[in-house]
Amino acid sequence: MKKQKEVVVALDGSGNEKGNAAVVSAVNFALTMYPSLRLLIFGSSSLLDDLKRQNIDPKRYEFHLAQQTIPQDESPRAVIKGYPRAAMRYALEAVRDGEAQSAISGGGTGPLVALSRHILGTIGNYRPALAARIPVSTGKFALMLDLGANSAYKAQDLCDFACLGQAMARLSLNIEEPRIALLNIGIEEHKGPAILQEARSLIKADRSLYYVGFLEANRIFCGDADVIVTDGFTGNIALKAAEGVATLLGRGAGVKRFFARMARPEWLMPWQYNGSLLLGVNGTVVKSHNSAGNEAMAVAMVEAAKAALADFGSELASSLKKS
Amino acid sequence: MKKQKEVVVALDGSGNEKGNAAVVSAVNFALTMYPSLRLLIFGSSSLLDDLKRQNIDPKRYEFHLAQQTIPQDESPRAVIKGYPRAAMRYALEAVRDGEAQSAISGGGTGPLVALSRHILGTIGNYRPALAARIPVSTGKFALMLDLGANSAYKAQDLCDFACLGQAMARLSLNIEEPRIALLNIGIEEHKGPAILQEARSLIKADRSLYYVGFLEANRIFCGDADVIVTDGFTGNIALKAAEGVATLLGRGAGVKRFFARMARPEWLMPWQYNGSLLLGVNGTVVKSHNSAGNEAMAVAMVEAAKAALADFGSELASSLKKS
Repeated sequence: MKKQKEVVVALDGSGNEKGNAAVVSAVNFALTMYPSLRLLIFGSSSLLDDLKRQNIDPKRYEFHLAQQTIPQDESPRAVIKGYPRAAMRYALEAVRDGEAQSAISGGGTGPLVALSRHILGTIGNYRPALAARIPVSTGKFALMLDLGANSAYKAQDLCDFACLGQAMARLSLNIEEPRIALLNIGIEEHKGPAILQEARSLIKADRSLYYVGFLEANRIFCGDADVIVTDGFTGNIALKAAEGVATLLGRGAGVKRFFARMARPEWLMPWQYNGSLLLGVNGTVVKSHNSAGNEAMAVAMVEAAKAALADFGSELASSLKKS
Repeated sequence: MKKQKEVVVALDGSGNEKGNAAVVSAVNFALTMYPSLRLLIFGSSSLLDDLKRQNIDPKRYEFHLAQQTIPQDESPRAVIKGYPRAAMRYALEAVRDGEAQSAISGGGTGPLVALSRHILGTIGNYRPALAARIPVSTGKFALMLDLGANSAYKAQDLCDFACLGQAMARLSLNIEEPRIALLNIGIEEHKGPAILQEARSLIKADRSLYYVGFLEANRIFCGDADVIVTDGFTGNIALKAAEGVATLLGRGAGVKRFFARMARPEWLMPWQYNGSLLLGVNGTVVKSHNSAGNEAMAVAMVEAAKAALADFGSELASSLKKS
């Protein structure tokens, strides 16, 4: 049997609101699923205590104490200047220095994006974006981006997101010519704000992109497109609204609750798509929801391990530089 | 028994993509539910033929031939200048002239808003917005606006929407001090784009409004707020994403489909919240989805009848002028 090459994931153990339990459980899950995985874990001494209590093989991970935690809403400037000993920073530096093939963090989106850009640098002139695989039917996925890496944006940024999404779809969905759509309030050409008209022109003009048109939000999960391009604000609103309904339908009381559990397509559950990738920086960075529970955190860890195994960051960078 | 006062609804019979069948069925349903309702119907001769075939009491409606249909995407200027004999225009003129207490149309949002503003005029300096009741649990509703009356907007417009929504919540939800929230990507004060920060300051500074904070999209249907304020683009994206998931969960195949039908909370079905009200113009105007099927069109008709019975437009106008 061929021995699988070892891969290393750097884990920011400080960001999860649900505390150490979700982190420890995700660590356990990922190490079990990927025998060739090793972890660099950065966090508090209490996290180390909790890890030790789990009897995880000490050869599978290396723990480094990180004294600082970056608040979710810290300003980019303060993030870069003020936290030399933060777990998030250590994890990103491990990727930069080649000690890990990917980093995963449940820290704030703002701090993670700012610090990733600062430490890893961006690929060419691309504006980085957070992309997630979203389920479109059993075992099938589309990509959606940006999911919050940027607050302000221009039409050219949406065109960048289309390029980043195309490269990721080729790598992680194995689709050579992914269908690219722009999220909008109607499918007719004149619909929506001027910035979307302009973005459409830019994307259409780029012959390397296979643009299929505008997409309405009620069609996000229908598989009409492989890459759904939007801005960070709108992407957040759309996915959270969808998640809200999916969660509500999973509740109910009494017999309704039973029927709901039997009916619910597992592929649509929100925790299925935790773990978004920050595209456009030199290195692989996975963002987990900071409120992710055990299942969701494990999904994100697996995403980080898979990306590390595939050497996702370098592959993406070289594919973008070629085009 | 006290005889109910007669109310008249003016119906633009030209806008529904599903054709005459949905219109005729909704007419039948509304007339049956509201014995004191009379309709002014504007439309094509083929609609008249279809109405006649249904054996509807001819005393309950008055038909007027309208030669023109306004395309969904016609420009505001062309809408105002170019369609003197359009069914939509006739319906709005009937409201202006006091012949009907409300108008209902399934025409394009752009044309309907432009023509309503032109024919009915706006209330004070308020920027008109489309508001819908959205279900938050069995028999309970919140209001959400704007749902597409405006493409561009300023912070002051969001503050206007809060005032319009408050007035509507008092009238149609019977809530004296409705809780007002701003849709955003996080609940923390610093979250989201600058325009939302500014809108928050304006709304908070207005002592007549009961502002409860930002609301995330996954909480839209949870009843955390009575009035959810957003811009027309974001409102469309959020409701359509939610609708998409609700519809998907209602599908499935085989036994899953059975369970889904048994589990699904009826209050969450998209057709439950067809019929949004255009707030901020002098008169009551109800917008139906142009692709509304029979059930949804009937819901919108009932909304128009109820608004007419309550003299909604005048009540709203006087409540806004007082404050």
